[in-house]
Amino acid sequence: MSDCVTIALDAMGGDRAPGMVVKGAEIALQRHPDTRFLLFGAEQKVRPLLAKVPRLAGAVTVQHTDEVVADDAKPSVALRTSRQTSMRLAIEAVADGRANGVVSAGNTGALMGIAKFVLKMLPGIDRPAIASLFPTRRGESVMLDLGANVECDEENLIQFALMGDVFARTVLGLMEPTVGLLNVGSEDMKGNDAVRGASARLRSTVSPIHFYGFVEGDDIAAGTVDVVVTDGFTGNVAVKTAEGTAKLFGEFLEATFRHSLSARIGYLFARGALRKLRMRSDPRRYNGAIFLGLGGIAVKSHGSTDAFGFANAIGVAVDMKVNGVLDKIRVELARVSQAPFAPEPAL
Amino acid sequence: MSDCVTIALDAMGGDRAPGMVVKGAEIALQRHPDTRFLLFGAEQKVRPLLAKVPRLAGAVTVQHTDEVVADDAKPSVALRTSRQTSMRLAIEAVADGRANGVVSAGNTGALMGIAKFVLKMLPGIDRPAIASLFPTRRGESVMLDLGANVECDEENLIQFALMGDVFARTVLGLMEPTVGLLNVGSEDMKGNDAVRGASARLRSTVSPIHFYGFVEGDDIAAGTVDVVVTDGFTGNVAVKTAEGTAKLFGEFLEATFRHSLSARIGYLFARGALRKLRMRSDPRRYNGAIFLGLGGIAVKSHGSTDAFGFANAIGVAVDMKVNGVLDKIRVELARVSQAPFAPEPAL
Repeated sequence: MSDCVTIALDAMGGDRAPGMVVKGAEIALQRHPDTRFLLFGAEQKVRPLLAKVPRLAGAVTVQHTDEVVADDAKPSVALRTSRQTSMRLAIEAVADGRANGVVSAGNTGALMGIAKFVLKMLPGIDRPAIASLFPTRRGESVMLDLGANVECDEENLIQFALMGDVFARTVLGLMEPTVGLLNVGSEDMKGNDAVRGASARLRSTVSPIHFYGFVEGDDIAAGTVDVVVTDGFTGNVAVKTAEGTAKLFGEFLEATFRHSLSARIGYLFARGALRKLRMRSDPRRYNGAIFLGLGGIAVKSHGSTDAFGFANAIGVAVDMKVNGVLDKIRVELARVSQAPFAPEPAL
Repeated sequence: MSDCVTIALDAMGGDRAPGMVVKGAEIALQRHPDTRFLLFGAEQKVRPLLAKVPRLAGAVTVQHTDEVVADDAKPSVALRTSRQTSMRLAIEAVADGRANGVVSAGNTGALMGIAKFVLKMLPGIDRPAIASLFPTRRGESVMLDLGANVECDEENLIQFALMGDVFARTVLGLMEPTVGLLNVGSEDMKGNDAVRGASARLRSTVSPIHFYGFVEGDDIAAGTVDVVVTDGFTGNVAVKTAEGTAKLFGEFLEATFRHSLSARIGYLFARGALRKLRMRSDPRRYNGAIFLGLGGIAVKSHGSTDAFGFANAIGVAVDMKVNGVLDKIRVELARVSQAPFAPEPAL
């Protein structure tokens, strides 16, 4: 029981919910057999799905609710009217200790707003950020914010840098991760006030962060730094642009192998290696973005993902818990907030 | 002589200048034999390069200057101190009618600042935007702004939409191009004030633009719309992110074919088709961004490009002139400015 991790699932969030949530939980259970699930959603929809997967059914407790946060609900409205929604109930299960983390593929803004309200912020952090790992030439890096904060000031960016640094230390296991600020050029004068101001402070010799400087869009895939820090507008566009480009390239590649008889034969020989490439660049592998800065583990899945992608998002929450990432972030934040260079103290 | 297009080249701009400028001009001359070049730069460096390419030498007039705009010069400083630089002289050749367009791989901000000052803006346009074509699932689309304006308000975005619309009509030959605003979601409430305000006005029934609505990062490669409108910060990051992702995917693909003997054999069979794929996704093919909104043709090449990429940027300038794009933009802007929905009149 002590090794058991319990994940609260918003069964009704996402384009293909609740089907992909249930199937995703089943896949996740195969990978993490000690996981238990609290499933929040419409019983009449969820029960028949669970009946088909008896092995999962034994690891699941269903809590019924008919209410769902609409995909187009404003975060403020969702927060006020969410009391009985599957999303809110799943988040509250984390707050009251019944679950170790929550995963939802629902409305991102609502999830962030409700999670912030229910789980509260970590000391020293004004706003949470959405962070995710992504594949690079050198392995994996982390980028934040991917959409929680459409507008960010200098102080927000610095807090993101701190959280990203701690996340890379704990999740990627790096001793001294490099941190870069996403900008339109590498020179000091480039960019807006927020990135220039944050850069000046991060360059300070008393900064606890190994600050690389400005990075540009092509540095993301190159893996120039371990942590890419940006505002939520730019980060959201960048990560979706990368996904879209990878998808297009994959389609071009498929068309290439249909191009001629010779190319078809070539495909037969290279099939095994190409399958590995497809797996390596499968965006579902990187599904599951973490809300950093909250007092609990909350993971956002892509709304359009399938069961395989949702299982990965569950895996992210399980890993966060198993590796004690949240506690490490708390400790690290306390440590860096002792440094002369620190986030603004919460007064 | 009447069909002759003269392009002014900043011989000293770009990481590999002046070598790649001279070689790029040679490649461009093969593609566009009626082109003539005015080359601005250090004669002692340029002359020996030209001596090696006699065919090009006959199509080139060199105008000597020792001064160069530094890569890290602030646009305002560059403008004040640029009088004798290769960049400034090349732009002035367009203003005084000796050249039909200018191409530079130098400092983007300086090029924009000087071009704006020397070539002036088109009526009804407050700020120029950097626009470029890019490959999509459906063919080609145009995106702007790619970095001229780090911060943009609602009015700027609307002017970019108008210019992008006209550009797609004239360069892509589309009767009714679709225009989308890049955002972090498709719902009305998403994004910042600038995109929400611009969207509301572009949705107006009297708008002369076929406005699709908000698009997201993955819509760029999907080709969801013909024209993607965004601020220069986001656009710059998005286009470089796409380039970096495509490059990484290409590297993964290469590694895939080295993966096993079977994969190597597969490569031999698929080689021809893969070469086509490589050409199709070669970012140099899309080198050459247009400064839209100026009273003259100015094309910015990537600073790190090679001769092949620079030749493409020259090709963009030649095409703009041959197809009379600038005049068409003038006419279209005058037409749309008659509409009830119009850019703010220049008072």
